[in-house]
Amino acid sequence: MCHACVMEDVKRSMMSRRSLFAGAAAAGTAALALGALSARPALAQSTGKVVDLTHVFDEKFPTFDGKPGIAYEEAVNIDQAGYQLWKLTIFEHSGTHIDAPLHFSKDGKSVAELAPESLICPLCVIDLTAKARDDANAMVEPADIEAWVSANGEIPKGACVAMNSGWAAKVASPEFRNDAAGNFAFPGFSTAATDMLAGMEVGAIGVDTLSLDPGNSTDLAVHHSWLPSGRFGIEGLANLDQMPAKGATLFVGAPKHARGTGGPARILAMM
Amino acid sequence: MCHACVMEDVKRSMMSRRSLFAGAAAAGTAALALGALSARPALAQSTGKVVDLTHVFDEKFPTFDGKPGIAYEEAVNIDQAGYQLWKLTIFEHSGTHIDAPLHFSKDGKSVAELAPESLICPLCVIDLTAKARDDANAMVEPADIEAWVSANGEIPKGACVAMNSGWAAKVASPEFRNDAAGNFAFPGFSTAATDMLAGMEVGAIGVDTLSLDPGNSTDLAVHHSWLPSGRFGIEGLANLDQMPAKGATLFVGAPKHARGTGGPARILAMM
Repeated sequence: MCHACVMEDVKRSMMSRRSLFAGAAAAGTAALALGALSARPALAQSTGKVVDLTHVFDEKFPTFDGKPGIAYEEAVNIDQAGYQLWKLTIFEHSGTHIDAPLHFSKDGKSVAELAPESLICPLCVIDLTAKARDDANAMVEPADIEAWVSANGEIPKGACVAMNSGWAAKVASPEFRNDAAGNFAFPGFSTAATDMLAGMEVGAIGVDTLSLDPGNSTDLAVHHSWLPSGRFGIEGLANLDQMPAKGATLFVGAPKHARGTGGPARILAMM
Repeated sequence: MCHACVMEDVKRSMMSRRSLFAGAAAAGTAALALGALSARPALAQSTGKVVDLTHVFDEKFPTFDGKPGIAYEEAVNIDQAGYQLWKLTIFEHSGTHIDAPLHFSKDGKSVAELAPESLICPLCVIDLTAKARDDANAMVEPADIEAWVSANGEIPKGACVAMNSGWAAKVASPEFRNDAAGNFAFPGFSTAATDMLAGMEVGAIGVDTLSLDPGNSTDLAVHHSWLPSGRFGIEGLANLDQMPAKGATLFVGAPKHARGTGGPARILAMM
């Protein structure tokens, strides 16, 4: 890290504790004008290493409702036409995918209406693996955010804060979705944590599980508060265990179909 | 531009003319190991301005075969469930989208198999608007590439070279696809140009039209040579008229469904 960067880092650490709590208390879950975000990714420090945070999506990929998220039908045959292509049937909220505000609010922004600036942003990764080993329905709580800030400095405005619960490694097993009794069981965010992140003007949250809310949620409270506030979420992230806690830039390749409530997305990170 | 950058630029300009022709002659259309690309985007000069090169995709978006590329069916109703989502039917090669090698070769890479490093790359834009005004089926020819190199220096390995023909402005009109007689009519690349780009180890080509080949092509020769060589293409780009000839970084949000021959993609550029 260059000398100027070290200085900047020390300054940020000193400021972070007071602005964190002041910001969270003052702003609450007020709607965020994502198009007006001032913070830009720290691309100047880029090493150029690209990590793909997207799972391969196919008929076997686990889904929230348990039905296949994608189906394939041959549309053009290469032996007949010299080229080939599929007619796909896709349920929007399957695979590694985006939740747009419209998913949980009638007048929310569609995935096509998200501000392009919000789709390239700093990535902050909260390590929840230890808590998730003890409790399959563990939640990111305000204490986890405070610990992240103490260790790493303030969370940049417009960032995506992602939970690494270790769940991506279970994606091919029934454990990704259910406990031994067949109940939903996976980690997620608490609303106390997402309210705090909203106060910090965070733009997006991400999870390596099937849902922003933990598996044992009965009210999908994070979906109902975070998305209608104008922010988006990313579900089913891969490879977060390869990411540093901070310093990477996230590229959110959200689909852009009109009236879309979300959809399978290509998520890349640059170190 | 910093002093070191100016020096580098002068050096590159001096080298460009001889390496251009030597490289093109020696390498021909040999397959490219996209995963081993050495050049990385010049993100250090980033201003952070993001330009969305993706059209909004809906039932009216023009397609190659003339049929709607996407259809919507309500899967979950918000009044009944508290949230909403669509079941989508999508033909892979519609909207702003990717052509993966598998589209034109039985054993080519699927869209899920493209190297992640190849999806974040330098963007070079060739202005074909003057030629396209005179001829709706104008092609990017080797002379257009030579002129670009003379003005801008060597094309970086792994870059995406995109044609700005001005066609994106016609997207809502029948002229985007057909001439007055109802024949396909839109600009594209010539194989002489794409063979030259392959020799320069360019990773992708992009067009603001319906096809990599021009509308009056009878053999889709660019598709048949470029894609089976292991490279990809992007069709239906928007907003290339807002881009500089060089210096931007392209983020290719290609979908990642297994066995995919391509598909609607989110394409963003950072200045």
